[in-house]
Amino acid sequence: MIGASMEIGVYGLGRFGGFWASQLAAFHTVLGWSRNENRSTPAGVRRVSENECLAAPVVILCVTISAMEEVLEKIAKLLAPGTLVMDTCSVKVYPANLMLRLLPPEIEIIATHPMFGPDSGVDGITGLPMVFSPMRVDERIAQLWSSNFEAMGLKVIDMSPKQHDEEMAFSQGITHFIGRVLGELDLNSSIIGTAAYKKLLDIVQQTCNDPWDLFVDLQRFNPNTAAMRGRLQVAINLMLDKFESIELPEDI
Amino acid sequence: MIGASMEIGVYGLGRFGGFWASQLAAFHTVLGWSRNENRSTPAGVRRVSENECLAAPVVILCVTISAMEEVLEKIAKLLAPGTLVMDTCSVKVYPANLMLRLLPPEIEIIATHPMFGPDSGVDGITGLPMVFSPMRVDERIAQLWSSNFEAMGLKVIDMSPKQHDEEMAFSQGITHFIGRVLGELDLNSSIIGTAAYKKLLDIVQQTCNDPWDLFVDLQRFNPNTAAMRGRLQVAINLMLDKFESIELPEDI
Repeated sequence: MIGASMEIGVYGLGRFGGFWASQLAAFHTVLGWSRNENRSTPAGVRRVSENECLAAPVVILCVTISAMEEVLEKIAKLLAPGTLVMDTCSVKVYPANLMLRLLPPEIEIIATHPMFGPDSGVDGITGLPMVFSPMRVDERIAQLWSSNFEAMGLKVIDMSPKQHDEEMAFSQGITHFIGRVLGELDLNSSIIGTAAYKKLLDIVQQTCNDPWDLFVDLQRFNPNTAAMRGRLQVAINLMLDKFESIELPEDI
Repeated sequence: MIGASMEIGVYGLGRFGGFWASQLAAFHTVLGWSRNENRSTPAGVRRVSENECLAAPVVILCVTISAMEEVLEKIAKLLAPGTLVMDTCSVKVYPANLMLRLLPPEIEIIATHPMFGPDSGVDGITGLPMVFSPMRVDERIAQLWSSNFEAMGLKVIDMSPKQHDEEMAFSQGITHFIGRVLGELDLNSSIIGTAAYKKLLDIVQQTCNDPWDLFVDLQRFNPNTAAMRGRLQVAINLMLDKFESIELPEDI
Protein backbone atom coordinates (compact mmCIF):
# COMPACT_ATOMS: atom_id res chain seq x y z
CA MET A 1 0.00 0.00 0.00
CA ILE A 2 3.03 2.28 0.44
CA GLY A 3 3.13 4.89 -2.25
CA ALA A 4 -0.45 4.04 -3.28
CA SER A 5 -2.66 6.98 -4.14
CA MET A 6 -4.77 8.19 -1.20
CA GLU A 7 -7.64 10.68 -1.02
CA ILE A 8 -6.59 13.80 0.86
CA GLY A 9 -8.57 16.88 1.76
CA VAL A 10 -6.40 19.98 1.85
CA TYR A 11 -8.14 22.53 4.08
CA GLY A 12 -6.88 25.99 3.17
CA LEU A 13 -5.34 27.03 -0.16
CA GLY A 14 -3.25 30.03 0.85
CA ARG A 15 0.38 30.62 -0.12
CA PHE A 16 1.62 27.41 1.51
CA GLY A 17 -1.61 25.35 1.22
CA GLY A 18 -1.86 25.89 -2.52
CA PHE A 19 1.74 24.86 -3.00
CA TRP A 20 1.51 21.78 -0.77
CA ALA A 21 -1.80 20.71 -2.39
CA SER A 22 -0.26 20.80 -5.86
CA GLN A 23 2.76 18.77 -4.67
CA LEU A 24 0.49 16.17 -3.01
CA ALA A 25 -1.65 16.02 -6.16
CA ALA A 26 1.27 14.59 -8.12
CA PHE A 27 0.98 11.44 -5.97
CA HIS A 28 -2.52 11.43 -4.49
CA THR A 29 -6.11 12.48 -5.15
CA VAL A 30 -6.40 15.92 -3.61
CA LEU A 31 -9.66 17.69 -2.76
CA GLY A 32 -8.97 21.34 -1.99
CA TRP A 33 -11.09 23.89 -0.13
CA SER A 34 -10.49 27.53 0.66
CA ARG A 35 -12.77 29.95 2.52
CA ASN A 36 -11.57 32.48 -0.02
CA GLU A 37 -13.28 31.81 -3.37
CA ASN A 38 -10.80 34.04 -5.16
CA ARG A 39 -7.90 31.73 -4.42
CA SER A 40 -6.89 29.95 -7.60
CA THR A 41 -7.17 26.15 -7.69
CA PRO A 42 -3.69 24.56 -7.60
CA ALA A 43 -2.64 22.32 -10.49
CA GLY A 44 -4.03 18.79 -10.21
CA VAL A 45 -6.37 19.65 -7.32
CA ARG A 46 -10.18 19.18 -7.39
CA ARG A 47 -11.92 22.21 -5.82
CA VAL A 48 -14.65 21.02 -3.44
CA SER A 49 -16.97 22.33 -0.72
CA GLU A 50 -15.82 22.55 2.90
CA ASN A 51 -17.89 19.47 3.85
CA GLU A 52 -16.53 17.42 0.95
CA CYS A 53 -12.99 18.37 1.92
CA LEU A 54 -13.54 17.32 5.55
CA ALA A 55 -15.14 14.03 4.42
CA ALA A 56 -11.82 12.80 3.01
CA PRO A 57 -10.19 10.00 5.06
CA VAL A 58 -7.12 12.22 5.49
CA VAL A 59 -7.44 15.95 6.14
CA ILE A 60 -4.38 18.21 6.00
CA LEU A 61 -4.88 21.58 7.65
CA CYS A 62 -3.11 24.47 5.90
CA VAL A 63 -4.33 27.39 8.00
CA THR A 64 -2.37 30.01 9.93
CA ILE A 65 -1.17 29.13 13.41
CA SER A 66 -3.38 31.79 14.93
CA ALA A 67 -6.48 30.34 13.18
CA MET A 68 -5.89 26.80 14.43
CA GLU A 69 -8.00 27.01 17.58
CA GLU A 70 -11.06 28.40 15.83
CA VAL A 71 -10.71 25.98 12.91
CA LEU A 72 -10.34 22.93 15.17
CA GLU A 73 -13.38 23.93 17.24
CA LYS A 74 -15.38 24.21 14.04
CA ILE A 75 -14.27 21.03 12.26
CA ALA A 76 -14.21 18.77 15.37
CA LYS A 77 -17.94 18.06 14.93
CA LEU A 78 -17.74 17.64 11.16
CA LEU A 79 -15.01 14.97 10.91
CA ALA A 80 -16.02 11.30 10.66
CA PRO A 81 -14.55 8.94 13.30
CA GLY A 82 -11.29 7.44 12.07
CA THR A 83 -10.31 10.50 10.03
CA LEU A 84 -6.57 11.22 10.09
CA VAL A 85 -5.82 14.91 10.66
CA MET A 86 -2.39 16.44 10.03
CA ASP A 87 -1.50 20.07 10.65
CA THR A 88 1.30 21.84 8.80
CA CYS A 89 2.15 24.68 11.22
CA SER A 90 5.69 26.04 11.48
CA VAL A 91 5.54 25.67 15.25
CA LYS A 92 4.57 22.34 16.76
CA VAL A 93 3.91 22.30 20.53
CA TYR A 94 0.98 24.71 20.31
CA PRO A 95 -0.98 23.09 17.42
CA ALA A 96 -0.19 19.55 18.63
CA ASN A 97 -1.63 20.33 22.08
CA LEU A 98 -4.63 22.05 20.50
CA MET A 99 -5.39 19.05 18.26
CA LEU A 100 -5.14 16.64 21.19
CA ARG A 101 -7.50 18.77 23.24
CA LEU A 102 -10.06 19.80 20.64
CA LEU A 103 -10.38 16.81 18.30
CA PRO A 104 -12.50 13.85 19.52
CA PRO A 105 -10.58 10.71 20.56
CA GLU A 106 -11.80 8.86 17.44
CA ILE A 107 -9.77 11.25 15.25
CA GLU A 108 -6.16 10.25 14.57
CA ILE A 109 -3.53 12.98 14.74
CA ILE A 110 -0.08 13.49 13.22
CA ALA A 111 1.63 16.86 13.65
CA THR A 112 3.81 17.77 10.66
CA HIS A 113 5.98 20.65 9.57
CA PRO A 114 6.76 20.55 5.85
CA MET A 115 9.86 22.76 5.91
CA PHE A 116 9.50 24.33 2.52
CA GLY A 117 7.21 26.56 0.58
CA PRO A 118 6.72 28.06 -2.87
CA ASP A 119 10.13 29.81 -2.68
CA SER A 120 12.41 27.08 -1.32
CA GLY A 121 10.49 24.44 -3.27
CA VAL A 122 10.46 26.30 -6.59
CA ASP A 123 12.76 23.70 -8.17
CA GLY A 124 10.95 20.76 -6.59
CA ILE A 125 10.79 19.34 -3.08
CA THR A 126 13.10 16.34 -3.47
CA GLY A 127 15.41 16.09 -0.47
CA LEU A 128 13.66 18.84 1.51
CA PRO A 129 12.93 18.13 5.18
CA MET A 130 9.55 17.43 6.79
CA VAL A 131 9.24 17.15 10.55
CA PHE A 132 6.86 14.34 11.47
CA SER A 133 5.38 13.90 14.99
CA PRO A 134 2.80 11.10 15.43
CA MET A 135 0.60 12.33 18.30
CA ARG A 136 -2.38 9.99 18.60
CA VAL A 137 -2.37 7.51 15.77
CA ASP A 138 -2.14 3.81 15.02
CA GLU A 139 1.52 2.98 14.52
CA ARG A 140 0.91 1.39 11.13
CA ILE A 141 -0.89 4.50 9.87
CA ALA A 142 1.98 6.68 11.04
CA GLN A 143 4.45 4.37 9.28
CA LEU A 144 2.35 4.45 6.10
CA TRP A 145 2.35 8.24 5.98
CA SER A 146 6.01 8.51 6.80
CA SER A 147 6.60 6.22 3.81
CA ASN A 148 4.17 8.14 1.62
CA PHE A 149 6.05 11.39 2.24
CA GLU A 150 9.37 9.67 1.63
CA ALA A 151 7.98 8.32 -1.66
CA MET A 152 7.38 11.98 -2.61
CA GLY A 153 11.12 12.56 -2.20
CA LEU A 154 10.95 14.29 1.18
CA LYS A 155 13.43 13.78 4.02
CA VAL A 156 11.07 12.74 6.83
CA ILE A 157 12.43 13.62 10.29
CA ASP A 158 10.82 12.06 13.37
CA MET A 159 10.98 14.63 16.13
CA SER A 160 8.85 15.60 19.12
CA PRO A 161 7.01 18.95 18.98
CA LYS A 162 9.08 20.13 21.94
CA GLN A 163 12.42 19.38 20.29
CA HIS A 164 11.18 20.94 17.05
CA ASP A 165 10.26 24.22 18.73
CA GLU A 166 13.52 24.41 20.66
CA GLU A 167 15.64 23.89 17.54
CA MET A 168 13.51 26.20 15.43
CA ALA A 169 13.76 29.16 17.80
CA PHE A 170 17.52 29.29 17.29
CA SER A 171 17.50 28.44 13.57
CA GLN A 172 14.43 29.60 11.62
CA GLY A 173 13.36 31.94 14.44
CA ILE A 174 16.61 33.87 14.58
CA THR A 175 16.96 33.91 10.78
CA HIS A 176 13.53 35.47 10.33
CA PHE A 177 14.14 37.93 13.13
CA ILE A 178 17.42 39.13 11.59
CA GLY A 179 15.88 39.15 8.11
CA ARG A 180 12.98 41.32 9.24
CA VAL A 181 15.21 43.73 11.16
CA LEU A 182 17.46 44.19 8.13
CA GLY A 183 14.35 44.49 5.97
CA GLU A 184 13.66 47.75 7.83
CA LEU A 185 16.99 49.19 6.66
CA ASP A 186 16.27 49.07 2.91
CA LEU A 187 19.64 47.58 2.05
CA ASN A 188 20.60 47.71 -1.60
CA SER A 189 22.71 45.45 -3.72
CA SER A 190 26.12 47.02 -4.26
CA ILE A 191 28.64 46.62 -7.05
CA ILE A 192 31.20 46.12 -4.28
CA GLY A 193 29.01 43.75 -2.25
CA THR A 194 30.97 40.80 -0.88
CA ALA A 195 29.75 37.20 -1.21
CA ALA A 196 28.70 37.25 2.45
CA TYR A 197 26.71 40.46 1.90
CA LYS A 198 24.91 38.85 -1.04
CA LYS A 199 23.94 35.96 1.25
CA LEU A 200 22.63 38.50 3.76
CA LEU A 201 20.50 40.14 1.05
CA ASP A 202 19.18 36.68 0.05
CA ILE A 203 18.11 36.08 3.66
CA VAL A 204 16.35 39.45 3.82
CA GLN A 205 14.55 38.76 0.57
CA GLN A 206 13.51 35.22 1.50
CA THR A 207 12.30 36.03 4.99
CA CYS A 208 10.50 39.26 4.01
CA ASN A 209 8.78 37.42 1.16
CA ASP A 210 6.81 35.33 3.66
CA PRO A 211 3.66 36.96 5.08
CA TRP A 212 4.23 39.29 8.05
CA ASP A 213 1.62 37.37 10.06
CA LEU A 214 3.60 34.15 9.66
CA PHE A 215 6.68 35.90 11.06
CA VAL A 216 4.74 37.20 14.06
CA ASP A 217 3.13 33.79 14.64
CA LEU A 218 6.49 32.00 14.44
CA GLN A 219 7.75 34.18 17.26
CA ARG A 220 4.51 34.36 19.24
CA PHE A 221 3.53 30.69 19.20
CA ASN A 222 7.01 29.34 19.86
CA PRO A 223 7.76 30.13 23.50
CA ASN A 224 11.48 29.38 22.97
CA THR A 225 11.86 32.45 20.76
CA ALA A 226 11.67 34.74 23.81
CA ALA A 227 14.98 33.30 25.06
CA MET A 228 16.44 33.68 21.56
CA ARG A 229 15.41 37.34 21.34
CA GLY A 230 16.75 37.97 24.83
CA ARG A 231 20.15 36.52 24.03
CA LEU A 232 20.25 38.37 20.71
CA GLN A 233 19.52 41.67 22.46
CA VAL A 234 22.31 41.10 24.98
CA ALA A 235 24.82 40.20 22.24
CA ILE A 236 23.92 43.22 20.10
CA ASN A 237 24.06 45.66 22.99
CA LEU A 238 27.45 44.33 24.07
CA MET A 239 28.75 44.80 20.54
CA LEU A 240 27.26 48.28 20.19
CA ASP A 241 28.78 49.30 23.53
CA LYS A 242 32.22 48.27 22.28
CA PHE A 243 31.98 50.82 19.49
CA GLU A 244 30.08 53.57 21.26
CA SER A 245 33.12 55.06 22.95
CA ILE A 246 35.38 54.54 19.96
CA GLU A 247 37.84 57.28 19.13
CA LEU A 248 38.12 58.11 15.49
CA PRO A 249 41.66 58.71 14.23
CA GLU A 250 42.60 61.88 12.33
CA ASP A 251 42.57 61.76 8.55
CA ILE A 252 38.90 60.73 8.42
CA MET B 1 53.46 46.79 -21.81
CA ILE B 2 50.05 45.77 -20.51
CA GLY B 3 50.20 42.39 -18.84
CA ALA B 4 54.02 42.51 -18.85
CA SER B 5 55.74 41.20 -15.75
CA MET B 6 56.61 43.93 -13.24
CA GLU B 7 58.70 43.91 -10.08
CA ILE B 8 56.52 44.38 -7.02
CA GLY B 9 57.47 44.62 -3.36
CA VAL B 10 54.78 43.22 -1.09
CA TYR B 11 55.22 44.81 2.34
CA GLY B 12 53.60 42.55 4.93
CA LEU B 13 52.89 38.83 4.56
CA GLY B 14 50.02 38.30 7.00
CA ARG B 15 46.81 36.46 6.24
CA PHE B 16 45.85 38.75 3.35
CA GLY B 17 49.35 39.86 2.32
CA GLY B 18 50.57 36.29 1.90
CA PHE B 19 47.56 35.42 -0.23
CA TRP B 20 47.78 38.54 -2.40
CA ALA B 21 51.56 38.11 -2.87
CA SER B 22 51.12 34.55 -4.15
CA GLN B 23 48.37 35.68 -6.56
CA LEU B 24 50.55 38.54 -7.86
CA ALA B 25 53.50 36.15 -8.23
CA ALA B 26 51.63 34.20 -10.90
CA PHE B 27 51.94 37.28 -13.15
CA HIS B 28 54.77 39.39 -11.76
CA THR B 29 58.09 39.20 -9.95
CA VAL B 30 57.22 39.53 -6.29
CA LEU B 31 59.63 40.44 -3.50
CA GLY B 32 58.03 39.80 -0.13
CA TRP B 33 58.92 41.13 3.30
CA SER B 34 57.40 40.53 6.72
CA ARG B 35 58.47 41.94 10.08
CA ASN B 36 57.56 38.49 11.40
CA GLU B 37 60.27 36.00 10.40
CA ASN B 38 58.01 33.08 11.26
CA ARG B 39 55.55 33.90 8.48
CA SER B 40 55.93 31.35 5.71
CA THR B 41 56.99 32.58 2.29
CA PRO B 42 54.04 32.45 -0.15
CA ALA B 43 54.37 30.30 -3.28
CA GLY B 44 56.32 32.04 -6.06
CA VAL B 45 57.50 34.88 -3.84
CA ARG B 46 61.15 35.78 -3.19
CA ARG B 47 61.71 36.62 0.50
CA VAL B 48 63.80 39.78 0.84
CA SER B 49 64.91 42.34 3.42
CA GLU B 50 62.76 45.37 4.22
CA ASN B 51 65.04 47.69 2.25
CA GLU B 52 65.03 45.41 -0.80
CA CYS B 53 61.25 45.24 -0.67
CA LEU B 54 60.93 49.02 -0.53
CA ALA B 55 63.42 49.44 -3.40
CA ALA B 56 60.99 47.81 -5.85
CA PRO B 57 59.46 50.27 -8.36
CA VAL B 58 56.01 49.28 -7.09
CA VAL B 59 55.32 48.71 -3.39
CA ILE B 60 52.05 47.19 -2.20
CA LEU B 61 51.32 47.71 1.49
CA CYS B 62 49.59 44.77 3.18
CA VAL B 63 49.51 46.00 6.76
CA THR B 64 46.57 46.50 9.13
CA ILE B 65 44.61 49.72 8.88
CA SER B 66 45.68 50.71 12.37
CA ALA B 67 49.38 50.24 11.48
CA MET B 68 49.23 52.43 8.37
CA GLU B 69 50.22 55.72 10.00
CA GLU B 70 53.30 54.29 11.69
CA VAL B 71 54.33 52.33 8.59
CA LEU B 72 53.97 55.34 6.27
CA GLU B 73 55.99 57.58 8.61
CA LYS B 74 58.75 54.96 8.59
CA ILE B 75 58.89 54.15 4.87
CA ALA B 76 58.40 57.73 3.59
CA LYS B 77 62.15 58.38 3.90
CA LEU B 78 63.14 54.98 2.46
CA LEU B 79 61.22 55.06 -0.84
CA ALA B 80 62.99 56.24 -4.02
CA PRO B 81 61.36 59.11 -5.93
CA GLY B 82 58.95 57.77 -8.56
CA THR B 83 58.01 54.69 -6.56
CA LEU B 84 54.34 53.71 -6.94
CA VAL B 85 52.71 52.86 -3.60
CA MET B 86 49.38 51.06 -3.34
CA ASP B 87 47.61 50.24 -0.09
CA THR B 88 45.15 47.35 0.26
CA CYS B 89 43.07 48.47 3.25
CA SER B 90 39.41 47.49 3.56
CA VAL B 91 38.54 51.11 4.24
CA LYS B 92 39.70 53.80 1.86
CA VAL B 93 39.22 57.43 3.01
CA TYR B 94 41.52 57.07 6.01
CA PRO B 95 44.54 55.37 4.34
CA ALA B 96 44.17 57.46 1.16
CA ASN B 97 44.35 60.68 3.21
CA LEU B 98 47.26 59.31 5.24
CA MET B 99 49.24 58.40 2.10
CA LEU B 100 48.66 61.85 0.56
CA ARG B 101 49.82 63.53 3.76
CA LEU B 102 52.76 61.34 4.76
CA LEU B 103 54.37 60.25 1.47
CA PRO B 104 56.60 62.79 -0.31
CA PRO B 105 55.17 64.38 -3.49
CA GLU B 106 57.59 62.36 -5.68
CA ILE B 107 55.83 59.14 -4.64
CA GLU B 108 52.86 58.08 -6.75
CA ILE B 109 49.79 56.77 -4.96
CA ILE B 110 46.91 54.46 -5.88
CA ALA B 111 44.48 53.38 -3.15
CA THR B 112 43.12 49.88 -3.72
CA HIS B 113 40.82 47.47 -1.98
CA PRO B 114 41.19 43.92 -3.30
CA MET B 115 37.81 42.58 -2.12
CA PHE B 116 38.81 39.01 -1.45
CA GLY B 117 41.07 36.97 0.73
CA PRO B 118 42.21 33.41 1.33
CA ASP B 119 38.61 32.28 2.03
CA SER B 120 36.65 33.94 -0.78
CA GLY B 121 39.56 33.42 -3.18
CA VAL B 122 40.16 29.78 -2.33
CA ASP B 123 39.00 28.70 -5.81
CA GLY B 124 40.84 31.50 -7.58
CA ILE B 125 40.28 35.24 -7.91
CA THR B 126 38.85 35.37 -11.43
CA GLY B 127 35.87 37.71 -11.54
CA LEU B 128 36.36 38.99 -7.99
CA PRO B 129 36.13 42.77 -7.46
CA MET B 130 38.94 45.19 -6.72
CA VAL B 131 38.22 48.81 -5.89
CA PHE B 132 40.74 51.10 -7.55
CA SER B 133 41.20 54.79 -6.62
CA PRO B 134 44.07 56.66 -8.32
CA MET B 135 45.04 59.37 -5.80
CA ARG B 136 48.22 61.04 -7.02
CA VAL B 137 49.54 59.26 -10.06
CA ASP B 138 50.31 59.73 -13.72
CA GLU B 139 47.19 58.78 -15.67
CA ARG B 140 49.11 56.32 -17.88
CA ILE B 141 50.50 54.53 -14.82
CA ALA B 142 47.02 54.28 -13.33
CA GLN B 143 45.71 52.89 -16.63
CA LEU B 144 48.57 50.39 -16.79
CA TRP B 145 47.82 49.02 -13.33
CA SER B 146 44.11 48.89 -13.91
CA SER B 147 44.90 46.78 -16.99
CA ASN B 148 47.42 44.67 -15.09
CA PHE B 149 44.82 43.75 -12.48
CA GLU B 150 42.24 43.04 -15.16
CA ALA B 151 44.77 40.76 -16.87
CA MET B 152 44.86 38.80 -13.59
CA GLY B 153 41.11 38.20 -14.00
CA LEU B 154 39.93 40.77 -11.48
CA LYS B 155 36.90 43.01 -11.92
CA VAL B 156 38.50 46.45 -11.45
CA ILE B 157 36.04 49.05 -10.13
CA ASP B 158 36.97 52.75 -10.29
CA MET B 159 35.49 54.41 -7.24
CA SER B 160 36.41 57.30 -4.95
CA PRO B 161 37.47 56.44 -1.38
CA LYS B 162 34.40 58.34 -0.11
CA GLN B 163 31.93 56.35 -2.18
CA HIS B 164 33.73 53.13 -1.26
CA ASP B 165 33.40 53.78 2.47
CA GLU B 166 29.75 54.80 2.21
CA GLU B 167 28.79 51.66 0.31
CA MET B 168 30.92 49.39 2.49
CA ALA B 169 29.38 50.55 5.78
CA PHE B 170 25.99 49.25 4.68
CA SER B 171 27.25 46.11 2.92
CA GLN B 172 30.44 44.58 4.36
CA GLY B 173 30.13 46.63 7.57
CA ILE B 174 26.65 45.44 8.43
CA THR B 175 27.42 41.86 7.37
CA HIS B 176 30.42 41.64 9.68
CA PHE B 177 28.52 43.29 12.50
CA ILE B 178 25.65 40.80 12.26
CA GLY B 179 28.07 37.90 11.80
CA ARG B 180 30.03 38.85 14.93
CA VAL B 181 26.88 39.34 17.02
CA LEU B 182 25.55 35.93 15.99
CA GLY B 183 29.00 34.48 16.59
CA GLU B 184 28.44 35.28 20.28
CA LEU B 185 25.36 33.04 20.34
CA ASP B 186 27.13 29.76 19.47
CA LEU B 187 24.55 28.75 16.90
CA ASN B 188 24.67 25.14 15.78
CA SER B 189 23.79 23.50 12.53
CA SER B 190 20.41 21.77 12.84
CA ILE B 191 18.97 18.81 11.01
CA ILE B 192 15.89 20.98 10.55
CA GLY B 193 17.84 24.10 9.54
CA THR B 194 16.26 25.91 6.61
CA ALA B 195 18.24 27.04 3.56
CA ALA B 196 18.15 30.62 4.87
CA TYR B 197 19.49 29.48 8.26
CA LYS B 198 22.36 27.67 6.53
CA LYS B 199 23.20 30.92 4.76
CA LEU B 200 23.18 32.70 8.12
CA LEU B 201 25.61 30.11 9.54
CA ASP B 202 27.85 30.60 6.47
CA ILE B 203 27.93 34.34 7.17
CA VAL B 204 28.84 33.77 10.82
CA GLN B 205 31.60 31.36 9.86
CA GLN B 206 33.04 33.60 7.12
CA THR B 207 33.00 36.81 9.15
CA CYS B 208 34.28 35.24 12.36
CA ASN B 209 37.10 33.57 10.43
CA ASP B 210 38.65 36.99 9.75
CA PRO B 211 40.84 38.43 12.52
CA TRP B 212 38.97 40.27 15.29
CA ASP B 213 41.22 43.32 14.80
CA LEU B 214 40.16 43.57 11.17
CA PHE B 215 36.52 43.65 12.25
CA VAL B 216 37.20 46.40 14.79
CA ASP B 217 39.25 48.38 12.26
CA LEU B 218 36.55 48.07 9.59
CA GLN B 219 34.10 49.69 11.99
CA ARG B 220 36.51 52.14 13.60
CA PHE B 221 38.22 53.51 10.49
CA ASN B 222 35.06 53.83 8.42
CA PRO B 223 33.13 56.76 9.88
CA ASN B 224 29.97 55.72 7.99
CA THR B 225 29.60 52.60 10.13
CA ALA B 226 28.42 54.69 13.08
CA ALA B 227 25.27 55.60 11.14
CA MET B 228 24.84 51.97 10.15
CA ARG B 229 25.09 50.77 13.76
CA GLY B 230 22.70 53.50 14.88
CA ARG B 231 20.06 52.53 12.33
CA LEU B 232 20.52 48.83 13.14
CA GLN B 233 20.01 49.53 16.84
CA VAL B 234 16.80 51.45 16.17
CA ALA B 235 15.43 48.70 13.91
CA ILE B 236 16.26 45.92 16.39
CA ASN B 237 14.77 47.75 19.35
CA LEU B 238 11.58 48.47 17.42
CA MET B 239 11.28 44.78 16.56
CA LEU B 240 12.04 43.63 20.11
CA ASP B 241 9.44 46.07 21.47
CA LYS B 242 6.82 44.53 19.22
CA PHE B 243 7.30 41.17 20.90
CA GLU B 244 7.98 42.31 24.44
CA SER B 245 4.35 42.76 25.33
CA ILE B 246 3.21 39.69 23.44
CA GLU B 247 0.57 37.51 25.06
CA LEU B 248 1.20 33.82 24.79
CA PRO B 249 -1.86 31.73 23.98
CA GLU B 250 -2.89 28.74 26.12
CA ASP B 251 -1.71 25.30 25.01
CA ILE B 252 1.95 26.28 25.09
